[in-house]
Amino acid sequence: MKIIESLKNDWVKQIKKLEQKKHRDQQNRYLIEGEHLVEEAIAFNAPVESFIITESALTTHISLVEKMDVEKIIQVTDDIMKHISGLPSPQPVAAIVEKNIAEIKLASATRLLLLDNVQDPGNVGTMIRTADAAGFDAVILGEGTADIYNSKVVRSMQGSQFHIQIEEADLLKKIDELKQSSVTLYGTELNEEAISYQEINKDHKLGIILGNEGQGVSREVLENTDYNVYIPMKGQAESLNVAIAAGIIMFSV
Amino acid sequence: MKIIESLKNDWVKQIKKLEQKKHRDQQNRYLIEGEHLVEEAIAFNAPVESFIITESALTTHISLVEKMDVEKIIQVTDDIMKHISGLPSPQPVAAIVEKNIAEIKLASATRLLLLDNVQDPGNVGTMIRTADAAGFDAVILGEGTADIYNSKVVRSMQGSQFHIQIEEADLLKKIDELKQSSVTLYGTELNEEAISYQEINKDHKLGIILGNEGQGVSREVLENTDYNVYIPMKGQAESLNVAIAAGIIMFSV
Repeated sequence: MKIIESLKNDWVKQIKKLEQKKHRDQQNRYLIEGEHLVEEAIAFNAPVESFIITESALTTHISLVEKMDVEKIIQVTDDIMKHISGLPSPQPVAAIVEKNIAEIKLASATRLLLLDNVQDPGNVGTMIRTADAAGFDAVILGEGTADIYNSKVVRSMQGSQFHIQIEEADLLKKIDELKQSSVTLYGTELNEEAISYQEINKDHKLGIILGNEGQGVSREVLENTDYNVYIPMKGQAESLNVAIAAGIIMFSV
Repeated sequence: MKIIESLKNDWVKQIKKLEQKKHRDQQNRYLIEGEHLVEEAIAFNAPVESFIITESALTTHISLVEKMDVEKIIQVTDDIMKHISGLPSPQPVAAIVEKNIAEIKLASATRLLLLDNVQDPGNVGTMIRTADAAGFDAVILGEGTADIYNSKVVRSMQGSQFHIQIEEADLLKKIDELKQSSVTLYGTELNEEAISYQEINKDHKLGIILGNEGQGVSREVLENTDYNVYIPMKGQAESLNVAIAAGIIMFSV
């Protein structure tokens, strides 16, 4: 176990920089905060580089600390925890985890979620969590989609990044590849030119594409799908939040 | 049309106070911002007290301005709009609308959503918007639930408060009343002691109860429902976001 007490320590400065995507990319790692996420990382053998704990957590979180590889523990002051945290009330336990985005294994995947330029981090995180809950195998993040290791995405995912495969890709290229693997692709549209999502053929491998909060799925992507679906609405709301739409469709297939 | 140019004007001070629930309650009105919400308010005959526009909006938003009752228009400076707005980039058009929470008409309601201590404004707003889209008749907000006229709730609702009935009530009392009106009540649980939401009987009038983000629906409420349901999950996520769960259930009935 290592103890760091100075805010000016070089490691502290590096960790603080992980708030920015540029530095997460350069350092190939990101921060997770709180007991639940650290538990999940351990339970699912995530590539944890270091566990960060405050001195008081050594007594308040004994059972969690006992699960940690002691050589990876870094004890920090409350001030350091506050400094590196993205939360209004910092947690006493955090961890640095290696980024784990890799090409998904297509052979075994039967349910995929594809995101086209979904910009809100809360939406992206919630959609990954929902894909996980629905038993989807993988999520593919297209251009313009919020960075999966953004702190808000990480909080909304609630650890689902440790359960399912996630890949960043050029959607049009990926769509071609998926079609060659016999995955039927469904774009989502806001209008009724499309077919109802209830007509999706559940017997096939399938990929569902959700799009930008304002514009929806791009025209170019919609033109390259097998089918485009919409959610029939009985009420007077003009549209659904994209994460809600994703949840309704994913839980229907 | 009235023109107000001073930040120190009394009306400006009163409107600024609407950021706080206490003052929204006292003044019995709230602020809506942006073209879309103002359009919706006009289209659905919401009780608009004043339309607030910047000078430039008089030319950039002619067709919307033409729909406004000219006696209700208050033209303000960009500085005033920025001062009263809750948005990082204030919109050129806003309105003050009377609060419109009233007891729902039970006789005609066949689908109701009840919220028990749902605290996140984004979740509450999204759930009301989703209830609207799903063709629900009413939403009942129980104790501890975010104020419907909170600016974040208003933004997430996207105008659905103009389409469906909304009431604030003591949930236990309301549940009794609903049962007397032959509404079958379904609580939602996180565990598998409940029945699957797919077993909900769609032929009856029904009320779906969703609960707090962390604790779910309170024990006391769950004990007073007709049935409690859960959403079977195929993946490894432990739970769903409450607004996603609400969307899946509401679109299944």
